[in-house]
Amino acid sequence: MSLYQHILLAVDLAETGSEPAEKALAIARTSDARLSLIHVIEPTPSYGTPGGLIDVLGAIKERAMAEVDKFCEDTHMPEGGVRRVEIGSVKSQILWTAKELEVDLIVLGSHSRYGLARLLGSTASAVLHGAPCDVLTVRCSERKM
Amino acid sequence: MSLYQHILLAVDLAETGSEPAEKALAIARTSDARLSLIHVIEPTPSYGTPGGLIDVLGAIKERAMAEVDKFCEDTHMPEGGVRRVEIGSVKSQILWTAKELEVDLIVLGSHSRYGLARLLGSTASAVLHGAPCDVLTVRCSERKM
Repeated sequence: MSLYQHILLAVDLAETGSEPAEKALAIARTSDARLSLIHVIEPTPSYGTPGGLIDVLGAIKERAMAEVDKFCEDTHMPEGGVRRVEIGSVKSQILWTAKELEVDLIVLGSHSRYGLARLLGSTASAVLHGAPCDVLTVRCSERKM
Repeated sequence: MSLYQHILLAVDLAETGSEPAEKALAIARTSDARLSLIHVIEPTPSYGTPGGLIDVLGAIKERAMAEVDKFCEDTHMPEGGVRRVEIGSVKSQILWTAKELEVDLIVLGSHSRYGLARLLGSTASAVLHGAPCDVLTVRCSERKM
């Protein structure tokens, strides 16, 4: 039985360990599923004034795409999936991409102890409520500082 | 790679379709994991006065256990896992059982459209935040009335 056809792995490059990627990869291999990846950057006021915002975000997005490529290399992500860096609301971008790509499983990390971890928890919960498909939240180890 | 060692499937016999069970079974087979099951009954005032509550809940629990056994038979649940009917808070009972059994994955359904479905959604979200392990929320079909 093929569990899933197309899996979307949502990664937070700064905070998420490799556990969600490892689980997503294992399920993709088991199901012979396509594996796509999304990383979302939420703009904050510290990115600068509105005038320079587009340039700043463009540079951030470019750097993030390079990090995503390195992440894919390090975790041995298979070819054939979509790799995306989006700017906007984490929840909305994950859900929009899940719908657009017609994935049947979203995999994301769930932290619990740190400040940003709580945000991630909220994201996981928000995605859970809006998702058009199954959601696997992977318990991550504490971040090694 | 064995994805999981011990999976806990949380079922709501009245509302949940067979999708969560099918997914839990498929993952258990893939991982050669043990598969346990819990059904939680939340007491409501309609169960009667405190004096007769214990008798009423006892009868409800007994009937639910028979339904759980039928559910396991219908869905071809393997032997070897724990089968439990508990009375109390859905979230607390699922989390307590997950910790006690040291499971590494909780599987539960997530509804979105009906009254009880919203409750289930909240449960899924609450479990997600408190879980000591991974959580797979399975998108269920609309309930056939």
